[in-house]
This record gives sequence, C-alpha cells and structure tokens, in this order.
Amino acid sequence: MPQPVQIVSPWGSKEDRARERNDKRDAVITAAVRLFNLNGFHATSLDDVAKVLRVTKPTIYHYYSSKDEILFECVRRGLNGIRDAAAEAATHGGVGLERLQILIHAYALIKTRDFGICVGRTSDDQLRPESRAKFRAMKREINDILQGVVSEGMADGSIAKGDARLYAFTIAGSLNWITRWYDPSGSMTPEDIADGMMAMLTDGLVPRE
Amino acid sequence: MPQPVQIVSPWGSKEDRARERNDKRDAVITAAVRLFNLNGFHATSLDDVAKVLRVTKPTIYHYYSSKDEILFECVRRGLNGIRDAAAEAATHGGVGLERLQILIHAYALIKTRDFGICVGRTSDDQLRPESRAKFRAMKREINDILQGVVSEGMADGSIAKGDARLYAFTIAGSLNWITRWYDPSGSMTPEDIADGMMAMLTDGLVPRE
Repeated sequence: MPQPVQIVSPWGSKEDRARERNDKRDAVITAAVRLFNLNGFHATSLDDVAKVLRVTKPTIYHYYSSKDEILFECVRRGLNGIRDAAAEAATHGGVGLERLQILIHAYALIKTRDFGICVGRTSDDQLRPESRAKFRAMKREINDILQGVVSEGMADGSIAKGDARLYAFTIAGSLNWITRWYDPSGSMTPEDIADGMMAMLTDGLVPRE
Repeated sequence: MPQPVQIVSPWGSKEDRARERNDKRDAVITAAVRLFNLNGFHATSLDDVAKVLRVTKPTIYHYYSSKDEILFECVRRGLNGIRDAAAEAATHGGVGLERLQILIHAYALIKTRDFGICVGRTSDDQLRPESRAKFRAMKREINDILQGVVSEGMADGSIAKGDARLYAFTIAGSLNWITRWYDPSGSMTPEDIADGMMAMLTDGLVPRE
C-alpha cells in the first residue's frame, strides 16, 4: 500500500485557522482600545489601527464591519469583565459586607485596565442606537448586582442601614471615576487604588476607635 | 425758564439697557443649558435655543458668538458654583471633617441643578482647545480645595489617616456621578441625595457602635 502524502500544510488545520482568526480579531481590538484610550475615539481612524498592526484597512474590515462595531466590542469586554467580577463576588460566602469588599476591589482593578478605561471614556451618544441599548442594559445589570449585594449586607447587619440604591450609586461613582484620573505612570498602583478606595468606603472618613 | 421735555423713553436709561442685556444673555444660557441637558449638546442647534426664546438665530448671535461659547459659559457657571461652594466650606470654623461635610453637601446639591448637570455631561473633547484648558484648570482648582480640606482633617485627627489625594478622588467620583443617575422626577430629592451621600462617605459601610 502506498504511503499517504505527508506534507506540513502552510494553511494549518481547521482548528488552527479558527484560532488564528480569533487571535487576529483579538489583536485588532487590543490595538484599537489602546489607541482609543490614548487619542480618543473620534481622533482614531481604522488606518491608525491598521498601521499599528502593520496591515491595511481592508484587512481590518475582514474582521470587523466598522469602527463603531470595534468600539462596542471594546466596551462590551470592559463591561463583561466588571459584570463577571461582580457576579462572582456576589456568590462568595460570608456576610454581605465581605462580598461587597471583594466586588469593590475587583471592580477598581478593572477600571485601571484598557477595556475598563474605555468604558469610562465612552458616552452613550458615541454608540449607535442598537449598541447603546445593549451598553445601557449591561450597565444596569452591573448596578443591579452591586445594589443586591448592598441590600444583602443591610439585611444581615454587616452594612449600615440606608438607601441601598443611593449607596450603590455612591460606590459606583467612586469606582467609575478612577478612569478619569488614573495615570499608569503615576505613583499609585492599581492595588493601592483598589485597597485604599475599599478601605475608605468601608470605614468612612471618621476614624474608628 | 421752559420745562425740560418730559417723556418716558422706551429705550430706558443706560443702566436699564445694561441690565436688560444681562437678562437676555442669562435667558440664552438658561434656555441652552436645559436643551443641552435634555437632548445633548450635539443634538441641540442654536435655532432650537432661539425658538424657545421666541427669537431668531441672529438675535442669539447678538449675545454669543457660537454654540461652543454658550456651552463653555454653561460649564463655567456650573464649575464656578462648585468652586465657590467648596471655597466657602473651606473657610468655615470647626475641624476638617465638618468643613468637608459642608463641602460634600453643597457640591451634591449643585450636581442636581442645571449647570452642575451640564458639567457632568460635557467631555473635554466637546470644548475648543482654549476653553478645554480653562475647563481643566477649574476642575483642578476644585480638586485642590477638596484635597486640602481632606488633608486638614487628617492633620487635625477628625478624618482617618490615608492618602488625601485618593480620598479626594473617591469623594469627587461619588459626587460627580450624581449627574449620571439623578432623575428630577424620581423619588430621591436633592436633599435626600446630599444627606445620604454625606452620611455614607462620613460613616462608611460598616455600622458604627
């Protein structure tokens, strides 16, 4: 019986090609989010993104249909990261306060990273109507998880009684604001920010005995 | 001697005319800030502003040279309001914590009002370069006052020791975020928000004995 032809195909297997396509989509998003964060969404063209990847704009269009689709994918990843971290924190054992502390810490860290920063810099009106509705729904979902954990803590006595909705907005505001002032080249590390903000929100301004 | 001519001039005195001009400039700004807050800056035209005031666009141009100038005047008023409230709180007697509480309360109230809301909805890149520089300088000034009061409280022992810069950003984030969720037709009044947020930031999440 003749041996089957043995050759290393430069096209790779079906799985290789799928993985390669995914890697390329990822590279487009990673290049885009950094440029958006650095220069702003409006000031960044797909030519800029292509240039960073040493390809041409038509190559980018092979993976994404528009700059808007790319922006939405960036904020989707950021919000998914926060949502997953919040949902995971919400399933932890212990009292509500402990779950909330885990949530605050994880959320703060994400707000110092590329996709978390992009969420903070993107306003509703930069997205197309259909993406905008999804963007808002994802934000509401995160707020609902946060508010739920606050309510649980108020119910089990680990968090001081108050308006859970107002508490959740107060916490989310502090966390979302990180994007506006965080400087990766500054003296505060992401861990410093997450620890310090968690401590201030937990203990308040008035010294504890 | 003949009597001087007695007639009520429909042009009024010089002072009347100056006051009238001021009132008209104010009316333009008040109409504009409400439309910007309601429909967004980009979606609002000077024709829309003129229509609300029952005049034509050329009349608006008699008072302001461009929509950009009007937007900057709106955010300038909002930031001036916060800066003045912060500066006034900073001069109060008592310990740093008390001054900070007065500051937080006043700042929160302004963030529920037209010009305070407009500041929160305006991003740097919506302003022209020269206005943007002023906008940033005013925000820095507010942050410096806030951080100064926090530092004073840490020094006099009324505020727990920590990183005053991080504390100031944490507080500013909660306050600035009000713009994003405050609903004038909702159940929380501006006073509820100011009181509740001040209480949470002061006492923290963990119940006090």
